[in-house]
Amino acid sequence: MSQSEHTSDRTQDLANPDRATLLAELARVLPANALLSADEDLKPYECDGLTAYRSLPWAVALPRNEDEVVAVLKVCHARKIPVVARGAGTGLSGGATPVAQGVVLSLAKFMRILEIDPVARLARVQPGVRNAAISEAAAACELYYAPDPSSQIACTIGGNVAENSGGVHCLKYGLTLHNVVALRVALMNGEIMEIGSRALDTSGYDLLALMIGSEGMLGVVLEATVKLTPKPRTAQVVMASFDSVIDAGNAVAAIIAAGIIPAGLEMMDKLATAAVEDFVHAGYDLSAAAILLAESDGTAEEVAEEIATISKMMEQSGARQLRISQSEAERLKYWAGRKAAFPAVGRITPDYLCMDGTIPRKHLSHVLTRIAELSDEFHLRCANVFHAGDGNLHPLIMFDARNPGETERAIAFGAKILELSVDVGGTITGEHGVGIEKVKQMCVQFSREELDVFHAVKAAFDPLTLLNPGKAVPYPRHCSEYRLTGSAR
Amino acid sequence: MSQSEHTSDRTQDLANPDRATLLAELARVLPANALLSADEDLKPYECDGLTAYRSLPWAVALPRNEDEVVAVLKVCHARKIPVVARGAGTGLSGGATPVAQGVVLSLAKFMRILEIDPVARLARVQPGVRNAAISEAAAACELYYAPDPSSQIACTIGGNVAENSGGVHCLKYGLTLHNVVALRVALMNGEIMEIGSRALDTSGYDLLALMIGSEGMLGVVLEATVKLTPKPRTAQVVMASFDSVIDAGNAVAAIIAAGIIPAGLEMMDKLATAAVEDFVHAGYDLSAAAILLAESDGTAEEVAEEIATISKMMEQSGARQLRISQSEAERLKYWAGRKAAFPAVGRITPDYLCMDGTIPRKHLSHVLTRIAELSDEFHLRCANVFHAGDGNLHPLIMFDARNPGETERAIAFGAKILELSVDVGGTITGEHGVGIEKVKQMCVQFSREELDVFHAVKAAFDPLTLLNPGKAVPYPRHCSEYRLTGSAR
Repeated sequence: MSQSEHTSDRTQDLANPDRATLLAELARVLPANALLSADEDLKPYECDGLTAYRSLPWAVALPRNEDEVVAVLKVCHARKIPVVARGAGTGLSGGATPVAQGVVLSLAKFMRILEIDPVARLARVQPGVRNAAISEAAAACELYYAPDPSSQIACTIGGNVAENSGGVHCLKYGLTLHNVVALRVALMNGEIMEIGSRALDTSGYDLLALMIGSEGMLGVVLEATVKLTPKPRTAQVVMASFDSVIDAGNAVAAIIAAGIIPAGLEMMDKLATAAVEDFVHAGYDLSAAAILLAESDGTAEEVAEEIATISKMMEQSGARQLRISQSEAERLKYWAGRKAAFPAVGRITPDYLCMDGTIPRKHLSHVLTRIAELSDEFHLRCANVFHAGDGNLHPLIMFDARNPGETERAIAFGAKILELSVDVGGTITGEHGVGIEKVKQMCVQFSREELDVFHAVKAAFDPLTLLNPGKAVPYPRHCSEYRLTGSAR
Repeated sequence: MSQSEHTSDRTQDLANPDRATLLAELARVLPANALLSADEDLKPYECDGLTAYRSLPWAVALPRNEDEVVAVLKVCHARKIPVVARGAGTGLSGGATPVAQGVVLSLAKFMRILEIDPVARLARVQPGVRNAAISEAAAACELYYAPDPSSQIACTIGGNVAENSGGVHCLKYGLTLHNVVALRVALMNGEIMEIGSRALDTSGYDLLALMIGSEGMLGVVLEATVKLTPKPRTAQVVMASFDSVIDAGNAVAAIIAAGIIPAGLEMMDKLATAAVEDFVHAGYDLSAAAILLAESDGTAEEVAEEIATISKMMEQSGARQLRISQSEAERLKYWAGRKAAFPAVGRITPDYLCMDGTIPRKHLSHVLTRIAELSDEFHLRCANVFHAGDGNLHPLIMFDARNPGETERAIAFGAKILELSVDVGGTITGEHGVGIEKVKQMCVQFSREELDVFHAVKAAFDPLTLLNPGKAVPYPRHCSEYRLTGSAR
């Protein structure tokens, strides 16, 4: 996407006395190599995975321990300086976009796995631990951490908690929310809270669920205790091709209605399949209008039975080619394409916008048809790659920012898809969060009164609104502006 | 339990002008048969399942539709009258105990099942629908609603949401929290909110999880959309007897560590077993120090394999007698005893106090040993019946309220058990909620700062503190009193 429009043009006001005072105070609580303030050092932090929004903060703090985190928060709290916590910066909705006159609090140095308890099937880790590193550490006990965002090699558990991250296997194994049992967090005033526990339930309001997916606006994660899942005995994937996305959508509905919760149930349309096949050579059917991938895992009997039912449902829904992985290598090859879909689409278009809406599964066919119509209306190609079982869409709107007006058209197309998701009873986000990208679309989904409740909840944790301000929950003025532009209904 | 000490002695002040005005205003928005105010009509509402706490409200409203609920709330909001929402009144922690000068809002007339969607596997129901009625309605589609509190024949889904109810099968299938996808609620000011959705995830803070288990203090449930689960193909139970509760506790740990999540994993100690066997004749081993019941459900292969592993783990942990149900009738007979445990203990003691703490499973043996020591110290018998797999204890402290000081001793014993739960990293409640019963024990579990956050969250929904005041979250003065009595550490 063109970055110029959204880029902050503000130069780093080195002479600003407020900034100088802040830096001096931070320097008192952090060692020299844990505080960045030179423009060239700040540059890598100016955006996250949503590169369309950029902004240089006043400083980046890289604390090494809890005391330093608390000290940084207290300095900022006292001086009313906004703080944006940051993990690996792989988020796609700009949840970690810095605030111009604020501090980025990087948890990059919190990389320790504190405990693996194979009996309780729990791991206690620091927030900067990579998602995949938890599974690597638990592998010796035949356990793994189930939520698997595509960025799992790089993204951190702290970021996963902030965004309530999902992934291919979340249909069966749940989102981050369902796999975290306790958090240790620092509030903006430096106070530390233990939330949740290893016990089944906790008393009082469910602050754990409230914290997960709160996009870094309620607290800073210092430790997470997560569930570990036994590795399945065996797994197989069915790959099927269809003559229409509607048939494929119906196959998804039929599989779920048959009482099966596949370990993964993913769809790609023709455009996405073509891009992927050219990139990873997974053996996809290039003439198909849509490809479905359905995985079953468990005991041999379970898998055999589920694969038979899945195959039958796909055939009854009009699948014209069906392949079942006959080895672990083949299973991984089938998935390799799906997992590389974003970069594959990136190879065939100068720019693309990755949307992230969720819809009730039964409206899948309708929504896909409507996206195809919108694609014609906006004269922009759109590849559909998504978690079909969850109803979590990732339409990839392709455009060329060098063509005047095309960026705006892509954004308007994306907004229509999100509104469509809300219209059919879904939501504007699946697993990427609202962040800065979709804060205005929240006006479509929530009423003024509902947004007031969100702000009141925020105030319960951060009354001065210093933690990650401007993300996730719009203020009335955002919504007035949005409605004035005519983008909202 | 002796009721006199906790009973409100206040007579219904019929001449109170505030009460007269309230009744007149409620009469304007409700039909005559939907508003109760005579003492004899209020009497059935003076307590819930925690009969030790009683109080007559000023009025009971029985609205028939949403408009009437909103009208009642608006009248009470305008006049600052407390409102306590009530389902079937089966709760065990006094979550529905009336407030003396307040209104009980009964949802008893909201008994409609609005929708069963077998494809999406969801049911949309009104709050007064009984837990078991959902499964009955879904049975035709081979589906059921998984959470199964012992009171499931009577308790309502609205109450289940308020208390985040559990049950025998929640180890495998989750609590209410994990089985509700959306709620329609009325806030205290009469505003209606739709929370959650049929889509996988929702944007904004997770108000759905916040509402579930909030003990009627944040909003009044008007509709709930719940998950339906496919009925398992087959199920079997292993019943094992042990010479010590420690061996039984170790067997529980070994089963979980072996990678099995049983559909149910329950323990009873000798006292409980004796009481139950005498009542239902389930065939329990009366000479055992502890009985374990472990259920496996799923496909035939899965069940056979799990039952074999469970049996092996039990034998290795010292089980001296092992029986496996050979028919559905036998399976139900084994469970009948466990499910009748509370009334069975009620037959052998004039009074008992049912505790509800949750502990990390690994501390099971230690906690059971300590409870036995406390039983000696307090000179009171204690039968232990509990969801062993979840670590959710239900010690039943037996006493005779007619003996001077015995009630106080039972309460003090109970408080010690809850403190013990917190000490080993657990919580003071498993599935019965905090209610009015354990509000002071919250002072043991949470710091002043943490309780402040709870109150701030409450204020986001109900700034005038009118919805179910005095329950679940203690005020500083509660905690000061509690500490002064020396009950807290």
